[in-house]
Amino acid sequence: MGASKSRGSGSDEPVAGNGLLHRRALLGKGLMIAGAAGVGAGVTGAAAEPLKDDEWSAHQGKTVQPIGVRSKFEDNTVRVLSNPKGEPRTQHARTPHHLLNGTITPSHLHFTILHNGIPDIDPDKHRLVIHGMVKQPMVFTMDRLMRYPMVTRQTFVECGGNSALMFSNEPVQQTLQYLHGVCSNSEWTGVLLSTLLDEVGVDPKAKWALPEGADTAALTRSVPLTKAWDDAIVVLYQNGQRLMAEQGYPMRLLLPGWEGNMNIKYVRRIKITDQPAMTYYEARNYSPLLPDLKAYKFYFVNEVKSFITHPSFGTKLTEPGYYEISGIAYSGSGTIKRVMVSADGGQSWADAAIQGPAQDKAFTRFHLPWRWDGQPAILTSRAVDDGGNIQPLRADFIKTRGQSLKPVANPMAFGNNHYNSLTCWGINSKGEIAHVYV
Amino acid sequence: MGASKSRGSGSDEPVAGNGLLHRRALLGKGLMIAGAAGVGAGVTGAAAEPLKDDEWSAHQGKTVQPIGVRSKFEDNTVRVLSNPKGEPRTQHARTPHHLLNGTITPSHLHFTILHNGIPDIDPDKHRLVIHGMVKQPMVFTMDRLMRYPMVTRQTFVECGGNSALMFSNEPVQQTLQYLHGVCSNSEWTGVLLSTLLDEVGVDPKAKWALPEGADTAALTRSVPLTKAWDDAIVVLYQNGQRLMAEQGYPMRLLLPGWEGNMNIKYVRRIKITDQPAMTYYEARNYSPLLPDLKAYKFYFVNEVKSFITHPSFGTKLTEPGYYEISGIAYSGSGTIKRVMVSADGGQSWADAAIQGPAQDKAFTRFHLPWRWDGQPAILTSRAVDDGGNIQPLRADFIKTRGQSLKPVANPMAFGNNHYNSLTCWGINSKGEIAHVYV
Repeated sequence: MGASKSRGSGSDEPVAGNGLLHRRALLGKGLMIAGAAGVGAGVTGAAAEPLKDDEWSAHQGKTVQPIGVRSKFEDNTVRVLSNPKGEPRTQHARTPHHLLNGTITPSHLHFTILHNGIPDIDPDKHRLVIHGMVKQPMVFTMDRLMRYPMVTRQTFVECGGNSALMFSNEPVQQTLQYLHGVCSNSEWTGVLLSTLLDEVGVDPKAKWALPEGADTAALTRSVPLTKAWDDAIVVLYQNGQRLMAEQGYPMRLLLPGWEGNMNIKYVRRIKITDQPAMTYYEARNYSPLLPDLKAYKFYFVNEVKSFITHPSFGTKLTEPGYYEISGIAYSGSGTIKRVMVSADGGQSWADAAIQGPAQDKAFTRFHLPWRWDGQPAILTSRAVDDGGNIQPLRADFIKTRGQSLKPVANPMAFGNNHYNSLTCWGINSKGEIAHVYV
Repeated sequence: MGASKSRGSGSDEPVAGNGLLHRRALLGKGLMIAGAAGVGAGVTGAAAEPLKDDEWSAHQGKTVQPIGVRSKFEDNTVRVLSNPKGEPRTQHARTPHHLLNGTITPSHLHFTILHNGIPDIDPDKHRLVIHGMVKQPMVFTMDRLMRYPMVTRQTFVECGGNSALMFSNEPVQQTLQYLHGVCSNSEWTGVLLSTLLDEVGVDPKAKWALPEGADTAALTRSVPLTKAWDDAIVVLYQNGQRLMAEQGYPMRLLLPGWEGNMNIKYVRRIKITDQPAMTYYEARNYSPLLPDLKAYKFYFVNEVKSFITHPSFGTKLTEPGYYEISGIAYSGSGTIKRVMVSADGGQSWADAAIQGPAQDKAFTRFHLPWRWDGQPAILTSRAVDDGGNIQPLRADFIKTRGQSLKPVANPMAFGNNHYNSLTCWGINSKGEIAHVYV
């Protein structure tokens, strides 16, 4: 069926194996996915599937509340927890990427990891102190901090241990929520740390900053001053609203593109020093061993990465035909420039469309039309950033970074850190989707 | 105090009346807002305001939940309601702009207006039918719609009656939530309506589309097909997650930059026609009278507009010194190119910094540093879009658009529609803020 208004002329001949189409192939063409209604159908009567007044069209609905509520049909869009009873150990909550779309992670679905639960910090009593190798140590109250110039930017935050299950010898059959769920993307607003460093006057011999949280964990990480001057932010707002309690309310440090645990929540002081402090969290907890038994230490940047969210494990293709392949790409080193998609497990690739504006160190969505012929296929994606960094193939990645000796029994257990190789979805002739390695 | 690392050299001489500074004036300079701690302070001991271990640093915090929760200290960040008991009439919920920052409105704080409450629509039973002047009427189920190519974009939605209180003869003393609270900004994801029009094949003689909601209100508005082809979206996701129930779950029409009520929620059918339907909502409900008693009808676009959120009514300046002036600008006609700010009620103006990336028909935040000398001041902003459209001054606006004959007694009452003139905050020598007209 031709469109009454011709708006494109992209060929729908496959551009790569197993039915991948050009990213602009469908512009101006009918896809014939939807069901036809009777020709000449009137308002409701003649349609093949007639419209009827459903129950919700016949009576007054629910009352609007001060805080909006989701549909009850979306009750499954929640985070999975590693420690739902709040036992005195680390708690994780994971973002359900397989149920989301776009680039923003709603704040209530942003991942969190806390070593000692969520503190109830009174913003009027909280203080941020910057001290150490400075001309004048200073105390920042909430009221005072609110008067400084602010910036707003999107950026992802990713735990260094995200995707730990990908180190398993055998692919773990879980959704993206388990595989890559400790990574999320928000719009953050706050005061550039450089503005506050200007206030205190940093000693030219200083090289490091040591932020510390006000919660019981009192987490600390040494941060090179170059990053502090570059784009670090003392964040006050997330997605328009004051920070969630579990995201560091009333303030957290944000280091765009750098390992999650360095983005210190509840930040109460930043000490300026000339050397790293070698605290527990940086020297032990977040320094996993490499195959040669050296510690993977002071590795800050979350490397370029991508995964396909639609379709993905947990869904099923119902019939052959057109589908859109869509996913998320991001890089802690810069902006996503290119995402390649394969439907034959990496034998051939096509360039996906990148949804703009692609932003520095932020989730970037990619799209590619695909015509599934009902035969087995393996979908995967591979991203490239504006620094030319590219996701490594699995064989190369495992060679240098190692792999667990046995499958990880507990899907919440951490194996290793900073996985940024490919994620592959194997689709069988029934349309069932499995997590596979290629 | 000089910064140890010089990063800027903007002059901090005022660039406009009453202490407005150049938008880059503060780069690399100390502002001396925060309080000094004792020189040479150690970790906690010697600071003028010593750090102590607060209660939240001394015990295990709360347990992480499947859906994140806000701090109890932010319980006032909610929408105000016009009809909290859900009586059988229209319900409004208004966004608290004075408490937010950045550009995204969290979905649970997005404004809503519903004429018959929130329906509980089962997505598996809901259908979208496109029919009328088409080659082949079609039925789109949720599952089928999910397979189409999607787009993601930020855009605001604004009720035509937003800012109705600004038509009052005397300035109403209320926060931005009451003055401009039925306007919000989200990242939306869905299928371009043009893609679905390609499917059904639109008759070349057709000129209009008539979308209709599936809730009891069954709201309809005639939409020119030019807009339907241009950038209209059948939206499935808002800020990453499936639509909120009150935002049209499972799907709504989005017409970027066009009057809110045309963005039909719960859309169940779109009839393609050659003339407008002149339904109740377009011919009567949303066609207010102008001073010459002609109806203000078929006026679709939300015009260029801006307001200062920080500082604003409801807060107070505690002492003379540096503050950041920050606010929101947007235009239903395009992208914000320039925002001017005045601290002397419009006698002199300075260009604010625009927080990028400024996006088409989306909230754009602007910033300008200001040194308040403790004397009376009047803050206001005036935005310009990339089409050269500029906010009209109040005298010019009132001349053509009219003004209520008496102050509006009920702050929820609608006076007139499409106010897009200035909003002014008068600050007295005590730092108290009032809503004033200039």
